[in-house]
Amino acid sequence: MEHLECLFCQKTFPVNPFMTFCSECREPLLFPIFSSKKTIFFEKSNSLNKFLDFLPLDHIDSNLCLSQGDTPLIPLINLMKKFNLPQTFVKNETLNPTGSFKDRGTVVAVQKAVELGIDKIGTVSTGNMASSTAAFGARAGLQTFILVKEDTSSEKIVSTLVHGPHLIKVRGDYGELFSRSLDLGRKHQIYFMNSVDPFRIEGYKITGLEIYLEFELNPPQYIVVPVSAGGHITGLMKAFMELQKQGFIQTLPKFIGVQAEGCSPIAQAFMSKKSKVERIEKGRTIAHAISNPDPPGGNIVLKLLNKFGGLMITVSDRDILAAQKLLAESEGIFCLPASATTFAGLLKMKDQIAFSSDDQIVLVITGTGLKSLSALEATVSAVHQTDIESLDSILSDMIE
Amino acid sequence: MEHLECLFCQKTFPVNPFMTFCSECREPLLFPIFSSKKTIFFEKSNSLNKFLDFLPLDHIDSNLCLSQGDTPLIPLINLMKKFNLPQTFVKNETLNPTGSFKDRGTVVAVQKAVELGIDKIGTVSTGNMASSTAAFGARAGLQTFILVKEDTSSEKIVSTLVHGPHLIKVRGDYGELFSRSLDLGRKHQIYFMNSVDPFRIEGYKITGLEIYLEFELNPPQYIVVPVSAGGHITGLMKAFMELQKQGFIQTLPKFIGVQAEGCSPIAQAFMSKKSKVERIEKGRTIAHAISNPDPPGGNIVLKLLNKFGGLMITVSDRDILAAQKLLAESEGIFCLPASATTFAGLLKMKDQIAFSSDDQIVLVITGTGLKSLSALEATVSAVHQTDIESLDSILSDMIE
Repeated sequence: MEHLECLFCQKTFPVNPFMTFCSECREPLLFPIFSSKKTIFFEKSNSLNKFLDFLPLDHIDSNLCLSQGDTPLIPLINLMKKFNLPQTFVKNETLNPTGSFKDRGTVVAVQKAVELGIDKIGTVSTGNMASSTAAFGARAGLQTFILVKEDTSSEKIVSTLVHGPHLIKVRGDYGELFSRSLDLGRKHQIYFMNSVDPFRIEGYKITGLEIYLEFELNPPQYIVVPVSAGGHITGLMKAFMELQKQGFIQTLPKFIGVQAEGCSPIAQAFMSKKSKVERIEKGRTIAHAISNPDPPGGNIVLKLLNKFGGLMITVSDRDILAAQKLLAESEGIFCLPASATTFAGLLKMKDQIAFSSDDQIVLVITGTGLKSLSALEATVSAVHQTDIESLDSILSDMIE
Repeated sequence: MEHLECLFCQKTFPVNPFMTFCSECREPLLFPIFSSKKTIFFEKSNSLNKFLDFLPLDHIDSNLCLSQGDTPLIPLINLMKKFNLPQTFVKNETLNPTGSFKDRGTVVAVQKAVELGIDKIGTVSTGNMASSTAAFGARAGLQTFILVKEDTSSEKIVSTLVHGPHLIKVRGDYGELFSRSLDLGRKHQIYFMNSVDPFRIEGYKITGLEIYLEFELNPPQYIVVPVSAGGHITGLMKAFMELQKQGFIQTLPKFIGVQAEGCSPIAQAFMSKKSKVERIEKGRTIAHAISNPDPPGGNIVLKLLNKFGGLMITVSDRDILAAQKLLAESEGIFCLPASATTFAGLLKMKDQIAFSSDDQIVLVITGTGLKSLSALEATVSAVHQTDIESLDSILSDMIE
């Protein structure tokens, strides 16, 4: 894989971590979809090595890994019954080493950085990508620069700073910071592995390839994914496009991208049948991890969803919080509000899409709820208080 | 396995989740170590099924699982060099579904509860066990009762309450609450799966059995484990005692249990060569998850360590925080202070134990740092602040 390409003008560019956007269209560059059949190394013990042939890497340096990926697929045994759903599973990305799917992209980009002798990396992030990049940067012994918004919560700051990066809170527009980081990266030779970096997106592909194996080579009918900058869903779709192009599968799963009503520029463009996303002023949603008013991968997501018959939908903050609670209370799975958009979206769509009872649906649960505990304090049910002597009668009252 | 036994008076008792302490010695009951050789089902995809024959369960109900266990073993590539250590690995238990090793015990106890038709479970906990029991209880559809100390942090309360249990803050002595919970459990038919529950300890065994497989059937020379109530290290030691008794291995790993100086009743008894642990008044340490002044499994731990040549040591809060920082900054692994005691302990012992360079050491990293973020706020390095225009010069200054 010796070049990158622009999906819009079809121009090709040399592979270069410091040049990841089309000089003409200003769109993110991607690795092309190759038609020559790749090899799956089924006998390998982890997915990065199983699917090495699908990646723009010559080999995997296990010293730079932290056991990312290979996350479980868990059936929603109780919620399927409760809501009369088809076969519904979560792909539990909270079990990545820093608690989110970001680790899958970070590990591939960091492998490339080390392979190329780059000793400085960075990212622009509102949270999950910051701690992921800081952790893998620490492991690889790279100088790591993390740029965050001024109002980033102290939880996210602490879980990133603990890995010892240079962390800078930057005042000003987030979209402008994103593009400025790439310019400054070129100048200072810092590889900014941001949300739509092509190596990062190749890492996200692995999640789709794992799903392909987990369903015994017959992909599920639907995959539901939270959408922010657009990199994650692009990687997932690319996995199945490659599997189809190379003859591994016949039919693509139908992708349903979900945004929060309060910050849904891609869904708005999709629903009004526009081919370009218009940035919005400011996002307002409880789902901070997907609150991106100016998503750099938005146009790619629109293009791919329209080409392959996918959907973009929105869900309200109220429905997001209800879905988060249902997953935790009924299934024991505690995720970020951003991740709960997938279940909220499924409940919203279940009467509009004529699911058949043997349809299989995968909800990609992107990050652990442990990273937004403070946001939940007001919403959880009441705590009882007592002394040891009164415990007996309190328990009696509680027992149904 | 049709009975439980007391390690002190050798009395046996019928298996009963409501009767888990010796009526004579007041010590926790354990499943005996059987000498008939068990079968390892190598072909199974997860460790609970691989080692089913070692467990007091007839089968594993996968619907009650959340992909617990099968955690990675990660070499400390950078810290080995930095401190000239033998081959050192972490067994990364933070990658369990609720972020701690507790899930391994909870899943076994919950399987048993459902098998026996018990519909109410509970636990007494300062944190990790609370969220673990609440999550698996939710998954199994059981009524779940969580008793916590009055001063439990809001982070721990929120990450438990999200799963919808009855949560009660109880004023009064923690040791008294522990024993009262068992009495009330019998009365109200609530199975209190507390820290030294025999089913829970059987679940912890699986970690040891996984380590046996990960080292290709040649156990490491040393296993370092944080010690609180004593259940976890007991389960780990029991795994290797069973492997030895059944002829799988010749030599036991040497176990090093670590407590925080500010709460170290078991280490104090060990160092003064007592056979019984004396409760202390109150624990004072940053390592809250292992701050148990009256450990119910303390005497068992002393007995087993003395029998098999293990050690109990203590580490200071300062060394714990330094070790936590080293693991995060050098290896990308972010754990609780309680878990960092293992690395602090290794650094303390490395000049006292004549390690050979090909010795293998496993540090059991018990829980994720995401559960104690607020405690870290003061300790992490400074955040830089700037606007977009000044970013260039700030980056220039930072680049070494």
